[in-house]
Amino acid sequence: MTNDVTSRPADGQETPASVRRITDGLLERVEHRLRSFLESGRARFAEVDARAGVVLDTLSGLVTSGGKRIRPAFCLTGYLAAGGDPQDPGIVAAAAGLEMLHVSALIHDDIVDNSTQRRGKPTMHTVFAEHHQTHRWRGEARRYGEGMAILIGDLALVYSDELMSQAPSGLLAEWHSLRSEVHVGQCLDVTAAAEFSVDPRLSRLIALIKSGRYTIHRPLVMGANGAGRPDLAAAFAEYGEAVGEAFQLRDDLLDAFGDSAQTGKPAGLDFSQHKMTLLLGWAMQRDERVRTLMTEPGHTPDEVRRRLLDTGVPQDVERRIADLVERGRKAIAEAPVDPAWRAELADMALRVTYRDN
Amino acid sequence: MTNDVTSRPADGQETPASVRRITDGLLERVEHRLRSFLESGRARFAEVDARAGVVLDTLSGLVTSGGKRIRPAFCLTGYLAAGGDPQDPGIVAAAAGLEMLHVSALIHDDIVDNSTQRRGKPTMHTVFAEHHQTHRWRGEARRYGEGMAILIGDLALVYSDELMSQAPSGLLAEWHSLRSEVHVGQCLDVTAAAEFSVDPRLSRLIALIKSGRYTIHRPLVMGANGAGRPDLAAAFAEYGEAVGEAFQLRDDLLDAFGDSAQTGKPAGLDFSQHKMTLLLGWAMQRDERVRTLMTEPGHTPDEVRRRLLDTGVPQDVERRIADLVERGRKAIAEAPVDPAWRAELADMALRVTYRDN
Repeated sequence: MTNDVTSRPADGQETPASVRRITDGLLERVEHRLRSFLESGRARFAEVDARAGVVLDTLSGLVTSGGKRIRPAFCLTGYLAAGGDPQDPGIVAAAAGLEMLHVSALIHDDIVDNSTQRRGKPTMHTVFAEHHQTHRWRGEARRYGEGMAILIGDLALVYSDELMSQAPSGLLAEWHSLRSEVHVGQCLDVTAAAEFSVDPRLSRLIALIKSGRYTIHRPLVMGANGAGRPDLAAAFAEYGEAVGEAFQLRDDLLDAFGDSAQTGKPAGLDFSQHKMTLLLGWAMQRDERVRTLMTEPGHTPDEVRRRLLDTGVPQDVERRIADLVERGRKAIAEAPVDPAWRAELADMALRVTYRDN
Repeated sequence: MTNDVTSRPADGQETPASVRRITDGLLERVEHRLRSFLESGRARFAEVDARAGVVLDTLSGLVTSGGKRIRPAFCLTGYLAAGGDPQDPGIVAAAAGLEMLHVSALIHDDIVDNSTQRRGKPTMHTVFAEHHQTHRWRGEARRYGEGMAILIGDLALVYSDELMSQAPSGLLAEWHSLRSEVHVGQCLDVTAAAEFSVDPRLSRLIALIKSGRYTIHRPLVMGANGAGRPDLAAAFAEYGEAVGEAFQLRDDLLDAFGDSAQTGKPAGLDFSQHKMTLLLGWAMQRDERVRTLMTEPGHTPDEVRRRLLDTGVPQDVERRIADLVERGRKAIAEAPVDPAWRAELADMALRVTYRDN
């Protein structure tokens, strides 16, 4: 067991080292929780029919395929910074529920964005469609592949609730807000891409509700509320929304200029999906040709990349990321939590916004 | 308000009339709950962006498009038969949550089954795809239509849990079982159709877990558990699984021989989707030609229908429905609940299995 490493220092004095040790210990428990939860689901359904075992194995395969666990980390950090008890299994279930929700969102987003790769492997709907073709089954392979991925994504969404039902009840209101927001935000994202109208206000709004609040602000506040410290909501919200928007801007830069070997996703997916990111919105405002390169056939992602760099917008986005991180760190500088946890949050802001995957 | 009509008779003597009056009064409250819940969601998101208002309006449109409310009815009846307090708003929230889950399942199933009509109107993904074409938006219309319907179905799934969080906590375990089962059951259904291998055992299993337990057994037990009567679970399970399988067999017959003007769905959808229903499974075992008619191009649904009738299988399915209904009614004949509620359950078994839509 990991109880020892996840207990608070005996002298009550948290240090950067003790803070990180406690968080890592709890994150390890989240992994155990996710695995044991899915194993009991498998045990229950596999006996019904072998095909049901495949469903659970496919979901487990994605859950354990090495996500960054950013949302669980912010939920646990918010909880521990607020003085929550590291021994409470409820917060482990909450963090596991956040990750299960994220896996559900990834499965469905990959269909919506027609993405072929996730974490360096073929996406779920792609795998099932190929299986359908290999076995020369009835009906349309695409319909089957996407249908199975829709249903397995639904199962993960349902499982996220089942895990959250074991969490401290104080965090449920924030959980409900987080979940409805992320799906409405995705609808805005998909529709803005289809309309392809340049609207930086809308781009920022989408980055805020489908990413900033979902990834950092609300998981942090869930943790604080779970520890009975709703008074931290305002500071955590300001920190979370700023760092969360920076997190999304980094995502946009990684999609455009990142190494797909490291991101595990196809490069330039936002281009092919006409995503109205702030990066592309600004670039199109500055240079009409960027729009042409994205929409007219026969242009390579490299052409878009080169043109984007010429506009100077990527540097502006980097500057905006730096400003947002600074604003986030300021927002918690005075927060009434142990200084070691304030330092950890300030450090996390850098880790999630200056990353290469 | 409807408080008056939903109160128990003053003399404590339930009659068929009082029983029906109480259930109808609570079902009316479920409608109010669904509407007010979605209105507050709309109020919250519409101010963010007009596109978000469209998302909520689309969901509300389907929720209020006249479903049969079978799952709420069984949940409320299980609760009231078990002696639950009709004034408790928790059971109204639970029934509303069951209906919201069902709406989510319909939205996603219509994508999975490539169905164009639901309740006499174009399905959600069809509407969004047409909207995309009309406006000549970027990307593939099918991808956009199905993407939006995936995300709005996710929102409904999330909302179903938000409603259920206000339900009596005693029914949550059954709720979790119901939800994971229905999605795994759908996966089996879709895969069996793709494999197109005749396997009546599998057809019955699918009918049981994706329909029988989902539609009747578990909603009933949720109601009884919500009223603090887990002792009724065994009798309600036997009743619910039998009547639930009969309910699905009626669905299969309506799909094959029903009037789409009444069902509101395209006729013969199971044929085009190669659904391995018990009806079709039995027919193919008896007459190899049925398989050919379903799989070879150029055959009309009418040809399949005529051939099905020649096999005599539809009559066998009718007999099986009658046997299952009889078994269900027997299962509750001795159940320790008020005789008027036993009579109502016996009557409901007939209403849901002998229907024309």
